[in-house]
Amino acid sequence: MTKQLRILPIGGLGEVGKNMMVYEYDEQILIVDTGIMFPENDMLGIDYIIPDFDYLLPNRDKVCGIVVTHGHEDHTGAIHHILEEINAPIYATPLTRGLLEVKLTRGRLLDKADLHTIQAGDSVKIGPFQVEFFHVCHSVPDAVGLGITTPAGLVVHTADYKFDPTPVDGWPTDFAKLAEFSSRGVLALLADSTNADKPGWTPSEKMIDPAFDEVFSKAAGRIIIASFASLVSRMQQVADAAERHGRKLAFVGHSMTENSEMALKLGYLDIPAKTLVSLDQALSMPDDEVVLMCTGSQGEPSSIVGRLSAGTNRRFSVKEKDTVVLSSRPIPGNEETIYRTINRLFRRGANVIYEPLAPVHVSGHASQDEMALMIHLVKPKYLIPIHGELRHLRQHAVIAKEAGMSEDNIQVVENGQIIEFADGELSLGERVPGGYIFVDGSRVGDVGPSVVREREALARDGIVLVSLVLDHSGRLIEIPEIITRGFVYKHGADDLLDATTQRVIEAVENSNGNIHNQVVQTVRSFLYNETKSRPMVLVTLSWV
Amino acid sequence: MTKQLRILPIGGLGEVGKNMMVYEYDEQILIVDTGIMFPENDMLGIDYIIPDFDYLLPNRDKVCGIVVTHGHEDHTGAIHHILEEINAPIYATPLTRGLLEVKLTRGRLLDKADLHTIQAGDSVKIGPFQVEFFHVCHSVPDAVGLGITTPAGLVVHTADYKFDPTPVDGWPTDFAKLAEFSSRGVLALLADSTNADKPGWTPSEKMIDPAFDEVFSKAAGRIIIASFASLVSRMQQVADAAERHGRKLAFVGHSMTENSEMALKLGYLDIPAKTLVSLDQALSMPDDEVVLMCTGSQGEPSSIVGRLSAGTNRRFSVKEKDTVVLSSRPIPGNEETIYRTINRLFRRGANVIYEPLAPVHVSGHASQDEMALMIHLVKPKYLIPIHGELRHLRQHAVIAKEAGMSEDNIQVVENGQIIEFADGELSLGERVPGGYIFVDGSRVGDVGPSVVREREALARDGIVLVSLVLDHSGRLIEIPEIITRGFVYKHGADDLLDATTQRVIEAVENSNGNIHNQVVQTVRSFLYNETKSRPMVLVTLSWV
Repeated sequence: MTKQLRILPIGGLGEVGKNMMVYEYDEQILIVDTGIMFPENDMLGIDYIIPDFDYLLPNRDKVCGIVVTHGHEDHTGAIHHILEEINAPIYATPLTRGLLEVKLTRGRLLDKADLHTIQAGDSVKIGPFQVEFFHVCHSVPDAVGLGITTPAGLVVHTADYKFDPTPVDGWPTDFAKLAEFSSRGVLALLADSTNADKPGWTPSEKMIDPAFDEVFSKAAGRIIIASFASLVSRMQQVADAAERHGRKLAFVGHSMTENSEMALKLGYLDIPAKTLVSLDQALSMPDDEVVLMCTGSQGEPSSIVGRLSAGTNRRFSVKEKDTVVLSSRPIPGNEETIYRTINRLFRRGANVIYEPLAPVHVSGHASQDEMALMIHLVKPKYLIPIHGELRHLRQHAVIAKEAGMSEDNIQVVENGQIIEFADGELSLGERVPGGYIFVDGSRVGDVGPSVVREREALARDGIVLVSLVLDHSGRLIEIPEIITRGFVYKHGADDLLDATTQRVIEAVENSNGNIHNQVVQTVRSFLYNETKSRPMVLVTLSWV
Repeated sequence: MTKQLRILPIGGLGEVGKNMMVYEYDEQILIVDTGIMFPENDMLGIDYIIPDFDYLLPNRDKVCGIVVTHGHEDHTGAIHHILEEINAPIYATPLTRGLLEVKLTRGRLLDKADLHTIQAGDSVKIGPFQVEFFHVCHSVPDAVGLGITTPAGLVVHTADYKFDPTPVDGWPTDFAKLAEFSSRGVLALLADSTNADKPGWTPSEKMIDPAFDEVFSKAAGRIIIASFASLVSRMQQVADAAERHGRKLAFVGHSMTENSEMALKLGYLDIPAKTLVSLDQALSMPDDEVVLMCTGSQGEPSSIVGRLSAGTNRRFSVKEKDTVVLSSRPIPGNEETIYRTINRLFRRGANVIYEPLAPVHVSGHASQDEMALMIHLVKPKYLIPIHGELRHLRQHAVIAKEAGMSEDNIQVVENGQIIEFADGELSLGERVPGGYIFVDGSRVGDVGPSVVREREALARDGIVLVSLVLDHSGRLIEIPEIITRGFVYKHGADDLLDATTQRVIEAVENSNGNIHNQVVQTVRSFLYNETKSRPMVLVTLSWV
């Protein structure tokens, strides 16, 4: 009997296995990806979220390697949090490694990291795992999927992918390798489910070029293109369009500039020196000769486009005849912010181009027919849909059934569910507790769900503070002080607060024991009767 | 020279003229629609929003009538707020009137309301306004647009519409009337811009029937269909599908039940008695013979589907083999909540059908080609795009230009901008201040943007309260009390709070004047250094 292969997707209620996966065999652990999640709208005040990798801490000595599949934030962004706890060799392709280095340099962790460059096509022994890296198309160059062989069998992990017939860098997904895997017999396929609700094929990245050409040929002034700082393929397309239309390109903002410089240095961006200018140069040129590429396609208030829309960008402002292009799709939850940003840009006189007005973005993920093709190429015994919310995984399962797989051989799991393979059979193992780790300011994990729930309560109806100073017989020495925040506009609520003060005085006078609780109850019910709101009520007692 | 016609869309930064429009001629005012807006995600704790109709209060005696174009919340929901301030006759078609009556009965205002039933095709003199009501298709029956004639000219107000060739009730939009208007000469067209970014034609409501048939024929257990309580056309389609597939239908929830009963009574719903059952009856029948229709298509936590997903619905729970259909499109900003609700329903064993998995919803609003058709039918001198965010209005203007209108004859405005017509010419009048009125609990307008900003600050990093009791020489009598909410998890932050207390004591000891400000500054900068967070800091001082 061979030993068990165990697979564990980590990351709470986020997309399954998106930010981090654990492969475990013979007491050794391979980590795949170290990404972050963006907080949802009701995770108030949270900067970002990292996978709860508590499971790994007692097992840190077993970790024999960390593989990062590509250079996007949701696969790389937590690298410094992991490195602080776990020191293991990190394997990545040259561009992914370069983008990790940008991140590690910022966190002053570059010296500590044991980085190993691998190439698509390489086969590397990492502990008991023979890892074959194969090229996949995605919206960043140099992305790889993994064939992971242990004595328990061969598992294929697609990571984020699409089957783009005409990728920007001319390098298609490695169909031959996928077919070769199938000839060896694949125990399990773990495959990207992001677009499981999108019929057909995801359009090629090349589809964007004509849309850019139309925008560029119509634009009378500057062109400002917003996207993600790690969408390196899009940078190339913008540079190519700039060249075709005789404009100069400047990258704007720290992350966009640092990532583009790294990609240029490593040869993953091919931009003639005469096309690339600094922001200063760009701002001194005629408007119709300039393209600026920056962050802010999700309307983030702190991004360049967010600040442009609010009129708070320092170096330059948006103006009449500017054309702003949002070259990305809204991440669910961001729609409202994005549309508000667009309206503000229009209000400042810019023209704004976004989906669905023009096809200035395509997804980097496979759609339904590509998912079926992946299954036909790899011919796995088992399918485990990953990289998606539960609704996407379920739909991926429907696609797999339609592609001929038996329902018994499709296993939908959520994060924290260990999957075990022994003797060629899949079974479900224990569930590992763990959810989100919130990062808030410099605090990692100190702000948990209970603190966020308090923030929710504060945000709902605000807070009312009552300060009492009592003598030792329980009599008020001073008139109670009442302060509110987020409850009433102070200059319009004197009557309400005076009446509340009166109720507090009566409650103290009539109290027969627990003054604190009686004052809290009195204030709560009085304010609810008056306003039908339930502010948080805090009472402090000082005995003198 | 004729007198001026003035038009004013009301509603702050919401969709232009969506919830309320004012037409003013010869010192008399006609109000069109009295709707509510739903709060955006960052309007913390707000229940809903009504248009700020301050402009009308000094002019309330000039109001000669209120027309409500159709029975959706965003056109009817503020009726009781308006009626509390303005008493004028209300004109509506039978179903719209019925749905208003449901609302007024709940608010105990039915006696006060002076309701007048009109029919599509009627022409009614309301003050100086000759109002011709014409039928339009929308996702609720009995919707009308308005031809408004004054000596200043004829203005056509489409309200929400689509050109559905096969509407559920068989009653198409009144093309003949629109063409007849054009033969008389139309000064201005005010037209729905909601779908200005959608190419082509909006599919007919009939498109849903085959999608429902597929869902119904596959469903093994109960079918639960979620939609809006005022989507009366969808109720008919669900009832028809239930009949075709031999299932019984129960409406669930107050608003869904009340609205369906009113529509049945007035003959706008045609459901055989044998098909309609109560919830109790439905729950006692075999699962595969039942359809439940309820609210919650936007994932609202307090709706039936919201509660089903959370496992907190009282009367029944979701179970294995249930099929839940979300028959609506996400309102921007609700996506995250909706998808979370869908994931939770899947987690509870239900199958969930939603767009884009199946075409179980179509929009009630015209798309780009219909907007061009409306312009060609009405042949207005001026177009004023309404019912949309700025980005939609701008796109509607692009469509109008492509349809042959001159740019000079298209006027994009935002809420609060008065448009004046005199001698057949459009000019822009003053801007009327005014924005949102927030409704929070029983408070209307008391909670304004400044209070919401305080809630945002509270939600970001929480609050820290410091209570000091000092003697009259400024010495601390007690150890300062520190309470936090939404900042740290209390049981893990003893060290941080002890250190903060120590800093407070030092600050008081070293104070040379303004103890309050010095303590606030000390706590703020200490906590920022320690946590990189900026909680709100409140200090209360008691002198004894």
